[in-house]
Amino acid sequence: MQEFLDQLQKQVPGLIIKAQQADIDHACTDWRKRYQTTALAVLEPANTKQVQGIVKLCDQFNVAISTQGGNTGLVGGAVPAAEGSAARRAHVVLKTGRIRETLEIDESNLTLTASVGYTLHEIQEYALAHDLLFPLSLASEGTCTLGGNLASNAGGVAVLRYGNTRELCLGLEYVNAQGGLCGDLRGLRKNNTGYDLRHLLIGSEGTLGIVTTACMKVYPAPKSRCVAWLNVDDIQAAVDALGFLQSRLFSELSSYEWMNANAIDVVQTHFPAKAPTCPGASDHVLAEFTSLGPEPALREQVTKTLEALLEEQTSVRNIAIAQNGREIETFWALRENISEAQAKEGLNVKHDVACTVSQLPVFHDMAMNAIEEYGVEVRPVLFGHLGDGNLHFNLSALKGVDSAAFLKQQQGLLNELVHETILQCGGTVSAEHGIGQLKAELLREITSASNYGAFVAIKQAMDPKNLFNPGKLVLI
Amino acid sequence: MQEFLDQLQKQVPGLIIKAQQADIDHACTDWRKRYQTTALAVLEPANTKQVQGIVKLCDQFNVAISTQGGNTGLVGGAVPAAEGSAARRAHVVLKTGRIRETLEIDESNLTLTASVGYTLHEIQEYALAHDLLFPLSLASEGTCTLGGNLASNAGGVAVLRYGNTRELCLGLEYVNAQGGLCGDLRGLRKNNTGYDLRHLLIGSEGTLGIVTTACMKVYPAPKSRCVAWLNVDDIQAAVDALGFLQSRLFSELSSYEWMNANAIDVVQTHFPAKAPTCPGASDHVLAEFTSLGPEPALREQVTKTLEALLEEQTSVRNIAIAQNGREIETFWALRENISEAQAKEGLNVKHDVACTVSQLPVFHDMAMNAIEEYGVEVRPVLFGHLGDGNLHFNLSALKGVDSAAFLKQQQGLLNELVHETILQCGGTVSAEHGIGQLKAELLREITSASNYGAFVAIKQAMDPKNLFNPGKLVLI
Repeated sequence: MQEFLDQLQKQVPGLIIKAQQADIDHACTDWRKRYQTTALAVLEPANTKQVQGIVKLCDQFNVAISTQGGNTGLVGGAVPAAEGSAARRAHVVLKTGRIRETLEIDESNLTLTASVGYTLHEIQEYALAHDLLFPLSLASEGTCTLGGNLASNAGGVAVLRYGNTRELCLGLEYVNAQGGLCGDLRGLRKNNTGYDLRHLLIGSEGTLGIVTTACMKVYPAPKSRCVAWLNVDDIQAAVDALGFLQSRLFSELSSYEWMNANAIDVVQTHFPAKAPTCPGASDHVLAEFTSLGPEPALREQVTKTLEALLEEQTSVRNIAIAQNGREIETFWALRENISEAQAKEGLNVKHDVACTVSQLPVFHDMAMNAIEEYGVEVRPVLFGHLGDGNLHFNLSALKGVDSAAFLKQQQGLLNELVHETILQCGGTVSAEHGIGQLKAELLREITSASNYGAFVAIKQAMDPKNLFNPGKLVLI
Repeated sequence: MQEFLDQLQKQVPGLIIKAQQADIDHACTDWRKRYQTTALAVLEPANTKQVQGIVKLCDQFNVAISTQGGNTGLVGGAVPAAEGSAARRAHVVLKTGRIRETLEIDESNLTLTASVGYTLHEIQEYALAHDLLFPLSLASEGTCTLGGNLASNAGGVAVLRYGNTRELCLGLEYVNAQGGLCGDLRGLRKNNTGYDLRHLLIGSEGTLGIVTTACMKVYPAPKSRCVAWLNVDDIQAAVDALGFLQSRLFSELSSYEWMNANAIDVVQTHFPAKAPTCPGASDHVLAEFTSLGPEPALREQVTKTLEALLEEQTSVRNIAIAQNGREIETFWALRENISEAQAKEGLNVKHDVACTVSQLPVFHDMAMNAIEEYGVEVRPVLFGHLGDGNLHFNLSALKGVDSAAFLKQQQGLLNELVHETILQCGGTVSAEHGIGQLKAELLREITSASNYGAFVAIKQAMDPKNLFNPGKLVLI
């Protein structure tokens, strides 16, 4: 393949080609270090044209392309495949971090157009400098890139109000399997002229094309913010309270996060913040409200509504409203440090599931019963974006039990129980983390033949040589 | 083809088959009576299973299917093709109006699941009976069906706040070209498990499959409503005022409709309602605000904000807020009767264009200049959903000029001028009406080879025998 690398050097001027083993190893190891694979080289193009040049040569030399943004994905989607026929293909890793040609805002149109190499945090900051909000917000925002957000249809903590990455995108440009440029960046809110290539690319995990630029929605930046903590009896109480709040403050409610007692216990063990508590109420909810109006008006509205909730719904036991920025930070730290706190106690069995909001309590009880029935001793550390029907249903070993042994022994069975239960409840085994290589076999198993057939037909139509991220998402 | 019809009768029990010429003629004539085509029969299935049976037989006998909802489309998308090789195919018209198996609401999940045969109005009413809002709203809502709304990605007057049909859909089921059932109705707000078949079907105008059921978002029904009329200098003033209002009342502003002086003149000539006027301000804006809170609070907020606008922006000359339900009706009647009033004066040259909100004034001036340059004498009756960047750029004959002769002589040139200008401004030639057969050739001309190539590849992958609505949208 020296000829391929030589041609890259020659035909794609300005392209950075890294062929040292250390660079390759780094780029071929995923965030969770579950996959350590290999590639011919790591390519770092600086613009769309260079991406086109790379794809054309890869097409010619039959070299597969793993496109990689911040490499923060949790399902091995951004590193070459470790197993199957895809693992035997010659690969390059195409890192998009240098693609930073465009970053601009159209204030009247409320749109932001950016190259995919910008990190999510950079984009948020750029919007804020124009007094605008780019609402996508997730734990890895300092490292993950717009390209990765689009490829994985990233979710996060503001989906309830603003939607996933999908809902925030008005258009994108991508390089197709022949090296041609597709899509558009017109930023139109209405445009019925053909099949929606944008939505086909979003969430396709680098398997249909390489997105290089996108036009995203932005919003007037909120002027005030009010964060409340609710102590509730159980997950059903949290669901009921959500309905009450949405019927009165639908537009103001931007986050609604639920945590069980174990989740708060774990985070309080490893971090200094303390959550409001109330005897008898084991579960917790963090609710954030924002508005374009003045702070006192929002606070009054939220306080009144929460008082009415407390009066009407006995399963809501206590309500605390953050009184200042420090308290807001404390409330959010409790929610956001759960994963890290849990990691400090060792490995655990993770699930990223979703169903309808109304089915969440049913799923929760069924899953807990199934686990109990099989006699597996676990500590369920449960939390998630309840407003979106999305739970991170993470199962830790009991305190004092070796977590590595627990994981090894129980992971297979627990995965099976939880996935079977969520599917019985009409839910999904991947709410926001995607499929990648981790769940590609699972997806094939659980998807109907006609739906999987459509996936395969689309993949073959748009990438006939299977150049883009083979072995991920859809297996052909 | 008697054998085909006999097999339908035999193999699809319960299917209504209409083969009389009057029924066929009725179903093969489009809303605007531009197309009068023919078919073997009109089929009226009552459920998904019958649709599957029809498709399987059509596949076997190579009979093309034109799927039709309320037949209110404006681009000939719901009747068999009149020209090209598609017109020579044996066709059936599949009417979806009897598919009414499912209509249900999940209040906690804020979703409504419905068969595609329900009219938009029926769905709105069903949601309202649960104190919920299904926000899609358009002129033909009494006749058009959910299926047609999905196939055409319908827009309307509440897109600014709630999005097009696309943004309102959480999932759909469709029958594929082999008669298999695809998609899902789980109603999930987060689900990253494969390519998004839903968005591929939405807006595909019956060319990729037949949608039979869909799961749609609903919202808490607003409790108060405030409608304002603005007299402004020109379209730029309307754009500027939109920015001002969105920065303060983004969530409350649900419609923002602009009309030029001719549009108001035409509607006032043929209907009794009178618009507020102000010397020097030729253009008009209707802005609707809604909220979940009490009416007086909304009215106070809107009044204050409009007063501030009047003070800050001199190109906004006058503001009137409807004082009661009757005045709200009057304001909306002015906007909604423009098309009908214009029709009363004879035929006119219609355009359904969109660009970014920021480019609208540029487009407006460029298009008017181009028309003047070519020396065509027209009366521009312009109006539209300015908040979405979407104008109905309709050109009437001068008063006293024969409109049929005007249409015949000038339509080609005016279409060309307006379309060329909107494309130069980075816009689209079809904002919400779609492509159908009317604009299929145009779409092929103006779309880049790589994008059109993707359309063709997708169509061939999902409908290899070109059974679904041949000659529409994408020409293969």
